[in-house]
Amino acid sequence: MSANTRVTVWNEYRHERKDAEVAKVYPEGIHRALQSGLAAFGFDVATATLDEPEHGLTEIALDRTDVLVWWGHMAHEEVDDGIVARVQRRVLEGMGLIVLHSGHYSKIFRKLMGTTCGLKWREADEKERLWIVKPSHPIAAGLPEFIELDKEEMYGEHFDIPDPDELVLVSWFEGGEVFRSGVTYARGQGKIFYFRPGHETYPTYYKEPILKVIANAIRWAASERGAAPFYGNAQPLESISLKT
Amino acid sequence: MSANTRVTVWNEYRHERKDAEVAKVYPEGIHRALQSGLAAFGFDVATATLDEPEHGLTEIALDRTDVLVWWGHMAHEEVDDGIVARVQRRVLEGMGLIVLHSGHYSKIFRKLMGTTCGLKWREADEKERLWIVKPSHPIAAGLPEFIELDKEEMYGEHFDIPDPDELVLVSWFEGGEVFRSGVTYARGQGKIFYFRPGHETYPTYYKEPILKVIANAIRWAASERGAAPFYGNAQPLESISLKT
Amino acid sequence: MSANTRVTVWNEYRHERKDAEVAKVYPEGIHRALQSGLAAFGFDVATATLDEPEHGLTEIALDRTDVLVWWGHMAHEEVDDGIVARVQRRVLEGMGLIVLHSGHYSKIFRKLMGTTCGLKWREADEKERLWIVKPSHPIAAGLPEFIELDKEEMYGEHFDIPDPDELVLVSWFEGGEVFRSGVTYARGQGKIFYFRPGHETYPTYYKEPILKVIANAIRWAASERGAAPFYGNAQPLESISLKT
Amino acid sequence: MSANTRVTVWNEYRHERKDAEVAKVYPEGIHRALQSGLAAFGFDVATATLDEPEHGLTEIALDRTDVLVWWGHMAHEEVDDGIVARVQRRVLEGMGLIVLHSGHYSKIFRKLMGTTCGLKWREADEKERLWIVKPSHPIAAGLPEFIELDKEEMYGEHFDIPDPDELVLVSWFEGGEVFRSGVTYARGQGKIFYFRPGHETYPTYYKEPILKVIANAIRWAASERGAAPFYGNAQPLESISLKT
Repeated sequence: MSANTRVTVWNEYRHERKDAEVAKVYPEGIHRALQSGLAAFGFDVATATLDEPEHGLTEIALDRTDVLVWWGHMAHEEVDDGIVARVQRRVLEGMGLIVLHSGHYSKIFRKLMGTTCGLKWREADEKERLWIVKPSHPIAAGLPEFIELDKEEMYGEHFDIPDPDELVLVSWFEGGEVFRSGVTYARGQGKIFYFRPGHETYPTYYKEPILKVIANAIRWAASERGAAPFYGNAQPLESISLKT
Repeated sequence: MSANTRVTVWNEYRHERKDAEVAKVYPEGIHRALQSGLAAFGFDVATATLDEPEHGLTEIALDRTDVLVWWGHMAHEEVDDGIVARVQRRVLEGMGLIVLHSGHYSKIFRKLMGTTCGLKWREADEKERLWIVKPSHPIAAGLPEFIELDKEEMYGEHFDIPDPDELVLVSWFEGGEVFRSGVTYARGQGKIFYFRPGHETYPTYYKEPILKVIANAIRWAASERGAAPFYGNAQPLESISLKT
Repeated sequence: MSANTRVTVWNEYRHERKDAEVAKVYPEGIHRALQSGLAAFGFDVATATLDEPEHGLTEIALDRTDVLVWWGHMAHEEVDDGIVARVQRRVLEGMGLIVLHSGHYSKIFRKLMGTTCGLKWREADEKERLWIVKPSHPIAAGLPEFIELDKEEMYGEHFDIPDPDELVLVSWFEGGEVFRSGVTYARGQGKIFYFRPGHETYPTYYKEPILKVIANAIRWAASERGAAPFYGNAQPLESISLKT
Repeated sequence: MSANTRVTVWNEYRHERKDAEVAKVYPEGIHRALQSGLAAFGFDVATATLDEPEHGLTEIALDRTDVLVWWGHMAHEEVDDGIVARVQRRVLEGMGLIVLHSGHYSKIFRKLMGTTCGLKWREADEKERLWIVKPSHPIAAGLPEFIELDKEEMYGEHFDIPDPDELVLVSWFEGGEVFRSGVTYARGQGKIFYFRPGHETYPTYYKEPILKVIANAIRWAASERGAAPFYGNAQPLESISLKT
């Protein structure tokens, strides 16, 4: 790992260019907002977007990424299957992956989970309160007991994901639902964190506690690991008795 | 669910027809050995094999399957992607899935896990001892503290699977390795059990404790569940205050 | 195990005798309401209360109990430590334990958890909605997507329990909190389910879906298990080479 | 947290003073060997032993401890219950705890687990091989695929602990057993790691990979956390409708 953790923020970057309401919130795109928000934590932050060649996710770009942050929504199906396989391979080799909000339906998240990743949703300018249910987790470092967002899109249970390795945050919604909003997984050598908030019409990614959760998750996902295992035909380490 | 749990044993059924050594152990195929072994527990057991139309896994066949048992090895790549997607959909809807031995590398298991499912392996006629590490689990019902197999293929760690929901059995191998040999997962509404033993050259699937583990896993995977969740746009259950 | 699962409902039985409001809801005690509610599912249901000799939990009574249901609140400290140790031993040997509502602070639950089991609470006649987040679990069998209770006491996170083995239900509260309301644990050979609802001033334990959750949990906790392990000095199963 | 993580190594320190064979291996006690071995990783390492006043675990000593390492064996019962309660309280407040080898039977570990913590054991100078089954875990950082110990005491399954939050290492023993040798738990705000090796007659705690596991576990257990939760009566965060 380099001195600074190397983060790449990937953004679909379509809503911001097509929808005036979204452009007002994120004039340079969600990726730029996250880039400057996360750089303040001392990470080296690059960006990549859907309409760049290879979606900006070349072998070289991924090789110099410790943790990839993913935001996508309306164009999940336009993400090339070969690039998805490449990202998956890098995660299994040890690259961290932070999947944000509507990224729950991205090809890469569904491929790593094996489930539909379906959920209930509603756009109704309602209040969300994210409760920390595992305060001992490094992703909760320095956070208060809950985070409040005045207006957000609702995501409700059942969320069709595998049981998380760790459940860090659970959301309460004004309209009556709950949601497992911060969940961790290990896949291969890589660590994955899904974090719910961040609908494109709200300034969620400018908020300090939200950026803190993402920064904590980046540090957690970038931590050192053991030797890459050998897979395949293996010689015995002990002598095997001959039986007849 | 019908009065009896309806099981379908799927077998690649190639080794048994190509290799005299294997044919001697399983003259009618691994699926027939499992069919009669499992029928003794009171299940309704059908079979399906790779070379049948749609690999024997038609919509109708899967609709009348509560739990699917899977054995494959040399021809994983010949399994049609469309059939794999169909099986996955049925698992996510609630069909149980028992994946045996070399099925760890099957398309369906890798798709549901999201990882490479790689491992170490060795064919050396060595002893395996499967220790039960979660005796309170229904898959351990009626079993002794360990199961011994005089000769088996070795599978060794690291096994590249997601952390299991439950770890039921761990194997000791004469040659010096250990392996998480009995692991459970929930995916969607479906329950999955991976069970290690069963190399095609050994009479493993005739052994009583091995059949008992598989029968217990079938019962566990066929258990009743809650209502199928609704996914999609949802009306609020509580009134939402209008904010400005 | 006998033909019918043998359940003992333990109740502190103090509020009902001291508080007219509670007596109106549970004139014969919470244990009697649960006894008849659960007997309807086909269990053999006995009761035991704090003021009986040995709190009604003699060796004989516990020996003929497959699953113990526990309700206590104002008199946790009056439960004898020796009886608590006896119940713990039986759980570790395989007796199921269903801990209800304010039982989160009982000696037996805290002893089995190892944590303070603290939480936030409020009595404000507010609405609770329990969402099923693991519909594949047998405790969710036959239940809809959520259960609504018009008025209940609020319990809020952080709930100071170990990460549950399985998280089955999460509550939403009108006042803005969430709570892990249905959680499972294995301890020794025994299975434990904590279930939140049931404040003494509300008729919660007469409600059909609440009884169904408890009945499902009883069936789940009473399931068969593997051989009781041997603990202590053990002879080698393989020959050990002499080293110098 | 201070600049350096503050570690206290607690040792029973009896075997080393009573048994010449042990004294030869650890002439100044296991705590001194661990103190110098761990200081090399940059921690501030204090020690405490059973026969000091309050076992060396005064309020002040624990207040300045980020992570407590525990080795005990023949005198578990001599540890004062009040001191055990004090250590437990500090763990629940956030102090890390690393329990070594025969510490599995210590009062503090059993109190935090809620189970008997029983296991099989044998002293037979046999080989142990510890396999890393979760290489993505920070406790595995910088380690090879397995660690070999020429001679150790055997601990075998079933190990009567709660299902670990994370299973990091599994041991293979020459005599035919397996063991969950490196397991993590969160309890309250604190993090716990149990690590199997370290029988008093072998020089295990001088070995580099063993010290590396313990050092990794200390760093993992000392990581920052979220705000200490409030427990007790809580005012509503949202208005509650009056019902009749």
